[in-house]
Amino acid sequence: MLAIVTESADAKPVIKQVPKPTVKDGFVVVKIMAAGLNPSDLLNAKGSFPYTTYPRILGRDWAGVVEEGPSHLVGNAVFGTSGKSLSFDQDGTFAQYCLIAENSLTSKPASLGFIEAASLGIPLTTAQTMLHRAMVKEGDVVLVTGAKGAVGSAACLLARQRGCRVLRAYRSAEADVNLTSSASTLKSLTPRPDVILETTGNLEVLSACVAALANFGRLAFISAPRTGSKQLSIDVLDVYRRQISLLGCNTLLATPEHAAQQLESIRPDIEAASISENGKQTVTVTLEEAVSFLDGTRPLSGRCIVSFC
Amino acid sequence: MLAIVTESADAKPVIKQVPKPTVKDGFVVVKIMAAGLNPSDLLNAKGSFPYTTYPRILGRDWAGVVEEGPSHLVGNAVFGTSGKSLSFDQDGTFAQYCLIAENSLTSKPASLGFIEAASLGIPLTTAQTMLHRAMVKEGDVVLVTGAKGAVGSAACLLARQRGCRVLRAYRSAEADVNLTSSASTLKSLTPRPDVILETTGNLEVLSACVAALANFGRLAFISAPRTGSKQLSIDVLDVYRRQISLLGCNTLLATPEHAAQQLESIRPDIEAASISENGKQTVTVTLEEAVSFLDGTRPLSGRCIVSFC
Repeated sequence: MLAIVTESADAKPVIKQVPKPTVKDGFVVVKIMAAGLNPSDLLNAKGSFPYTTYPRILGRDWAGVVEEGPSHLVGNAVFGTSGKSLSFDQDGTFAQYCLIAENSLTSKPASLGFIEAASLGIPLTTAQTMLHRAMVKEGDVVLVTGAKGAVGSAACLLARQRGCRVLRAYRSAEADVNLTSSASTLKSLTPRPDVILETTGNLEVLSACVAALANFGRLAFISAPRTGSKQLSIDVLDVYRRQISLLGCNTLLATPEHAAQQLESIRPDIEAASISENGKQTVTVTLEEAVSFLDGTRPLSGRCIVSFC
Repeated sequence: MLAIVTESADAKPVIKQVPKPTVKDGFVVVKIMAAGLNPSDLLNAKGSFPYTTYPRILGRDWAGVVEEGPSHLVGNAVFGTSGKSLSFDQDGTFAQYCLIAENSLTSKPASLGFIEAASLGIPLTTAQTMLHRAMVKEGDVVLVTGAKGAVGSAACLLARQRGCRVLRAYRSAEADVNLTSSASTLKSLTPRPDVILETTGNLEVLSACVAALANFGRLAFISAPRTGSKQLSIDVLDVYRRQISLLGCNTLLATPEHAAQQLESIRPDIEAASISENGKQTVTVTLEEAVSFLDGTRPLSGRCIVSFC
């Protein structure tokens, strides 16, 4: 079968002919119909994760059909995401077939195509992790930075469906909060957000988020600067007096089983039209095009899905 | 009646003869038998809290007997703590009588004397807030810094009663973790703590605590340096990768009703012999002695209780 393989932490990813995986106990072989490209795939292709073992087929998000395994599963349309396994210490989903644990399969909602389903795994489970960590509840004022990104837009949708008032923050005059002059804008918000879901990894934005929070505020964040300082200075007196929570979120610590449970828990949201629309904002690419994103030849922008259909 | 009163943010507290409070709807008049002295009383006496209004009777923790109010309450032995009200915008408990909201009374366990009961409010509710915020659960490895202090020792007791493995950290070779050389000792702990309850407000200790946590670790803290910088530098990449939670805790944001609910929720712990022992490590002082602590003439050390018995 064809797959995108990286041979070592230093090597660039390439398209290779490799053996189709063999089914084993507790696992199924899935015929991959579509696989989502995420920023973490680019980082993984660059050798940025210490836990990746080589040679390794890349790819974390996927949708497909069970081809081999227990008879009650064969033929099922399923989707899911990698957790800390696929593309790290198990072969990933940028391949025609992938070996996937039975308990990390989620049934593909009939309302979604394979392309749409393959676009949801990391964005939705990351957003759901952030909402869960920040204990988002009905009536909260929730500010989402980087609200137009894959995780940010998923977070906005989930928060809105939980009855929150959602403020979308990004660098544009059209945003609810324009991040172009982030610090001053965020700090002067009224009312102050109960929850901020920070997806940009920009230290200036992150610092302004801490100051912007209401008493009892929760700030969940998923990233850090890619270059330069990663040190954030926080005023301890202020953080304890206002009883603020600063919550790191990393879906790479979760098992694929946990990710499947998360996707199952937000099935009603996934089946809602808005999530389906969210999944439709995608561009399908070939294996060759995917490699050009992964090796840095072309910049990744928007939601790209490797199509095997 | 006699009371310790502070006339303004700049004035030193003094003992004064003031009118006994008059009962009103939803409140009772409690004859105070004993009132606990806490570090926050000293800060309040110095005018350190922007929300204190004047003139004000100081004192947050208390135990006593209901003297006036609904007939089913009169004569009851009760205890409690201030939340954000008593000694801030309502008169406090360093007085022979105090007006207290009915829904912020907790029945005094028969196993405790008034002196013991008056020593528990802030330490126990603060410790309970920290455990709650850090989602402490059975089997967690819980490190408590400043473990010999009032809050720290209460936190150790509560964590132990929840089935945690508790490590007591303070500046002594006898401690489970000797904080005399905090940074290196904390960072090399094995296994890493799931939870750290930081009560010292020392930035070097706090910084070492972040580094010491296990993946998914929760760090709850209640204080900051009293002088100099209050800025803690955190490595954002590390905090999100290990999915760490940094949790400010401030019982001054809680209502006295909430504090009463907390004390009720830990009634089994309060009735256990160990908490009773904890409450016994006290020194009873007169109103005059209390003033000398509050005006800075004498340093406060240990658990001091103003006795009106």
